[in-house]
Amino acid sequence: MNIKLATGESIPAAAGENILSALKKSGIYLVASCGGKGTCGKCRIKIHSGEYRTSASGKLSQADKKKGIVLACQTFPENDISVEILEEARLVVGDRIALAKSKDLSELFRSFDKEITPIVKRLNIKLPPPTIEDHISDLERLNRELEMKGIKGMRFSRTFISSMADDLRKHNWEIHLAYVDGHEAIFVTSDKQTSRYGIAVDVGTTTIVVYLIDLSDGKLVDVGSTYNSQIRYGDDVITRILHATEGNGLEELRETVTDDINSITDTIIEKHGINKEHIECAVISGNTAMSHIFWGLDPEHIREEPYIPTVNSFPLWKAGTARLHINKQAPVYTLPCVASYVGGDIVSGLLASKMHRNHEIALFMDIGTNGEIAIGNNEWLMTAACSAGPCFEGSGIKHGMRATEGAIEAVKIAADTFEPSVSVIGNTTPTGICGSGMIDAISEMFLSGVIDQKGKFVREIKTDYLREGDEGMEFVVYKGAKDIVLTEVDIENIMRAKAAIYAGISSLIKEIGFSLDNIERVYIAGGFGNYLNIDRAVIIGMLPDIPKEKFRFLGNTSVAGAYLCLLSEKLREEAEDIARKMTYMELSVSRNFMDEYMSALFLPHTDMALFPTVEKLMK
Amino acid sequence: MNIKLATGESIPAAAGENILSALKKSGIYLVASCGGKGTCGKCRIKIHSGEYRTSASGKLSQADKKKGIVLACQTFPENDISVEILEEARLVVGDRIALAKSKDLSELFRSFDKEITPIVKRLNIKLPPPTIEDHISDLERLNRELEMKGIKGMRFSRTFISSMADDLRKHNWEIHLAYVDGHEAIFVTSDKQTSRYGIAVDVGTTTIVVYLIDLSDGKLVDVGSTYNSQIRYGDDVITRILHATEGNGLEELRETVTDDINSITDTIIEKHGINKEHIECAVISGNTAMSHIFWGLDPEHIREEPYIPTVNSFPLWKAGTARLHINKQAPVYTLPCVASYVGGDIVSGLLASKMHRNHEIALFMDIGTNGEIAIGNNEWLMTAACSAGPCFEGSGIKHGMRATEGAIEAVKIAADTFEPSVSVIGNTTPTGICGSGMIDAISEMFLSGVIDQKGKFVREIKTDYLREGDEGMEFVVYKGAKDIVLTEVDIENIMRAKAAIYAGISSLIKEIGFSLDNIERVYIAGGFGNYLNIDRAVIIGMLPDIPKEKFRFLGNTSVAGAYLCLLSEKLREEAEDIARKMTYMELSVSRNFMDEYMSALFLPHTDMALFPTVEKLMK
Repeated sequence: MNIKLATGESIPAAAGENILSALKKSGIYLVASCGGKGTCGKCRIKIHSGEYRTSASGKLSQADKKKGIVLACQTFPENDISVEILEEARLVVGDRIALAKSKDLSELFRSFDKEITPIVKRLNIKLPPPTIEDHISDLERLNRELEMKGIKGMRFSRTFISSMADDLRKHNWEIHLAYVDGHEAIFVTSDKQTSRYGIAVDVGTTTIVVYLIDLSDGKLVDVGSTYNSQIRYGDDVITRILHATEGNGLEELRETVTDDINSITDTIIEKHGINKEHIECAVISGNTAMSHIFWGLDPEHIREEPYIPTVNSFPLWKAGTARLHINKQAPVYTLPCVASYVGGDIVSGLLASKMHRNHEIALFMDIGTNGEIAIGNNEWLMTAACSAGPCFEGSGIKHGMRATEGAIEAVKIAADTFEPSVSVIGNTTPTGICGSGMIDAISEMFLSGVIDQKGKFVREIKTDYLREGDEGMEFVVYKGAKDIVLTEVDIENIMRAKAAIYAGISSLIKEIGFSLDNIERVYIAGGFGNYLNIDRAVIIGMLPDIPKEKFRFLGNTSVAGAYLCLLSEKLREEAEDIARKMTYMELSVSRNFMDEYMSALFLPHTDMALFPTVEKLMK
Repeated sequence: MNIKLATGESIPAAAGENILSALKKSGIYLVASCGGKGTCGKCRIKIHSGEYRTSASGKLSQADKKKGIVLACQTFPENDISVEILEEARLVVGDRIALAKSKDLSELFRSFDKEITPIVKRLNIKLPPPTIEDHISDLERLNRELEMKGIKGMRFSRTFISSMADDLRKHNWEIHLAYVDGHEAIFVTSDKQTSRYGIAVDVGTTTIVVYLIDLSDGKLVDVGSTYNSQIRYGDDVITRILHATEGNGLEELRETVTDDINSITDTIIEKHGINKEHIECAVISGNTAMSHIFWGLDPEHIREEPYIPTVNSFPLWKAGTARLHINKQAPVYTLPCVASYVGGDIVSGLLASKMHRNHEIALFMDIGTNGEIAIGNNEWLMTAACSAGPCFEGSGIKHGMRATEGAIEAVKIAADTFEPSVSVIGNTTPTGICGSGMIDAISEMFLSGVIDQKGKFVREIKTDYLREGDEGMEFVVYKGAKDIVLTEVDIENIMRAKAAIYAGISSLIKEIGFSLDNIERVYIAGGFGNYLNIDRAVIIGMLPDIPKEKFRFLGNTSVAGAYLCLLSEKLREEAEDIARKMTYMELSVSRNFMDEYMSALFLPHTDMALFPTVEKLMK
């Protein structure tokens, strides 16, 4: 029997084998926090055709069932079957996902620091075994030795002590004491154990990425990613915050995100045969709301004026508290946040960009679900959030999707026939259009005259590609079994997003009394950044008209910064320093920002003098 | 309808009302950790006669059901019913239980210290509310204020922070910060809240006692006690430790003891309308095994040579970790232990006795389930455990019971007729015999010639009271509907226990090169101590033949010491100091102890010269 996937792949399935298990054998992983018991309701797939048996699940709604949605772990094909993996259920492990720029992460690390200094330190201790005469308790015995080594005031949790007695005996009183600075004992292990791992986690509003790192050499063991399953409670940060304030919402959101991280981690450690107890630290990087929700802290005050987070600089709490499936005692370092809408992911990004170390004035932009910017150098840093919304991630766009397999990532429109030609990620039949595709399409439609400066369709143009659809006028970007279109409403949404980004940049630059000429470098971060065509982004007026050679793409700097912090005390200090140094500007109450935003609601801008390159192209 | 109790009391019950609820209305409390939902299986009663409806419960064994045992919360009388409350289900609240010597506890406290210095300290803080300009996070705002007050490095748990944001706003940024020394923040409360409570808990092997104390004046709000429900897993410490090492045994024991403490606390706070969040600290006093089990620490190494506890001096952990039903953040102070068989209850006892402050040489004895002794003064302290076993608590004695209502506490035997006369606690029909009754009975039997110096019945004596029973010869202490007897096996057990106690005292005294004459004071602690007749205890050779005026009864010093530690930092330091200063002598490996024990297996002793008072009586 075969399982045919929407991507065209065909996977064998044995008789009596469930779909989750068959997919796993072929290296296709689904989110399955319960491990395939049918209780978490996460491995959702849609059956397009074929015969199958499936068990009823309370985790599926009537509407789901009508659509043919089932749980992969509870569904058994009875002959060839055609299946679509729902986006939120997809978990990607290994090289199928986009990594940070440098795949050899240890090389990236060495460009920052020379020595690996993990969060958990170790102390080699040899204790005299107890006798009838020397009968002090295990803890006093350990403390006596620590005092002889000049270490006083070590703190011991109940969890530490509950396993200590057996561990001391198991390792014959010759141990490594794992502890964190500020003197808290973490666990006792054999002095022979050398496997030490850590995880660096990017908790994105849309995507979760986990790096599993070998702490001995800083090398990447493996990487996994999945959509943030919180998406089911809303695409953007504000909807999530609203959900958190309702009933059991906060707990639901918290459980969802830790389940996602645990699903990835479980899958990686199973694949590599790693003992989860040997994962002894974690670093979390996320925006302020995501960081709060991850720790189960109510994010409601983030949303309400004057927009106050509960914590910016998080204490070092434990993996057990965070409910991560690693050593319960492992310390979890959270990248510090700056303000309600500039979080640890941005601090992480600045760290990875090194702009805080250089004298040149740089502009840092993370165009993810939100849209944060920072300007500065080794002396000062300014930051702001421009609430661009999640449309570049595919949300609120009729055929929008993330930049994954099947997404249209580039578009060209023939000047005479208006016929579009597209490139698709993975070179397959397109299933939607991602952010870079949208920017391409709009710039091409604008230059070819399909839309005007206000982003409205030019009705006079006669072409089959411009037509009346269910939701008004639409442009067909791809003609096929399933047409991919951009509607006028889609274009409005994209215009608002690009205007917010541009207005953010220009307000911030004006605030500090600079002009665009002062910017010596532009860093573009975020998964989106990997596919962005700068020329096109300038044409639509999303990016300022700055010489192309000043731009650098950095990829996912949130996870890269988390990775760096996992390995280096110095870099954790630099991260704290970046967060402290950053001056936050609240754009939502800025008159200047509103003016800039209104002026930017044109293609490329009401003030064409700001876009000489585009002006030339239009002639 | 009426519920008639075994004690003779009659309680009204409304139609459709369960027995648990009817008893509660009459001030009779049962252990019911689940609150009467039928799930904890603890409110066990035995129905002697009458009609009733009861729901099946998985918590009752077939054997239980055959005996007519039901759960009070699931049982509804249909007409008058006769009921026996099983010992382990009885929870006593209020003045029905024996308190420490001084009922006015605050007077006791004032004899030790002048000022109340609770574990949780408070800091009055007024924060400027956040604005768009002053938009730092809540935690940074709090920290900024603390730094201005010169307090640095305060630690914050996730639990603290998860409620902090709302609490700050609820109290309008004018708060009390509750914290513990070593700078850990505990909770935020209104600067108006003045109700502050704490609990002092004696975790005895047989009994649990909880004092609820008003921290403002040190006064006792109420007291409650119950049997330690762990009794179902064995009477003595060793059986419990063995149970802890089997399967889920440790967790079962831990849950059982915390359930008991919570049942008492819940009952008291309900009775007095106290908010459990206002109970902000707890002190636990128990022997080493009980303290370990309370914290979920495996006690197995306590039992095996060289008898090593995991911890003697416990860190300050939280009520949430301990699973106590009080403020989750409340610090829990555990009285320090000295060795595997000399625990926090003895340190607590020494503290309450003040012997560590005085120059006179004192002997301290706690004759509870185990039997611990200490000798010393303000300069030195020696201690040992003599494993007397739990027979004075009623265990291993045919009609043995604890010193509660219905227990024979004193016995006289007529010299000519051998007819016994008894006094019974509560002046009711006796249901058993408690420790002091046993000592009385044996001394009387010995003096009247019913038993010889070896504790064997003198077969030549002709009286109806000495007869052949199911388990061999027995003496009828009380004749009634239910005879109360002491068998020859009972007497052997009591002989072994008294010999262990005497041998412990004499070994310790010899070890330090003293004689009995050097002892200036004898303190007797333990619930048992309340009813002990010293003359009789000397006659059987349990206590040394020391002038009666040197003896002092102290009652339950374990809970008294816990109470003192709840109120005073100085006394918590003194407790730590006592534990550090005490030299522990391991009697189980002492040749000297075995010799002393063998010599003490006679009435009163093989060496009559040691008991001049008794020798005189025998003439």
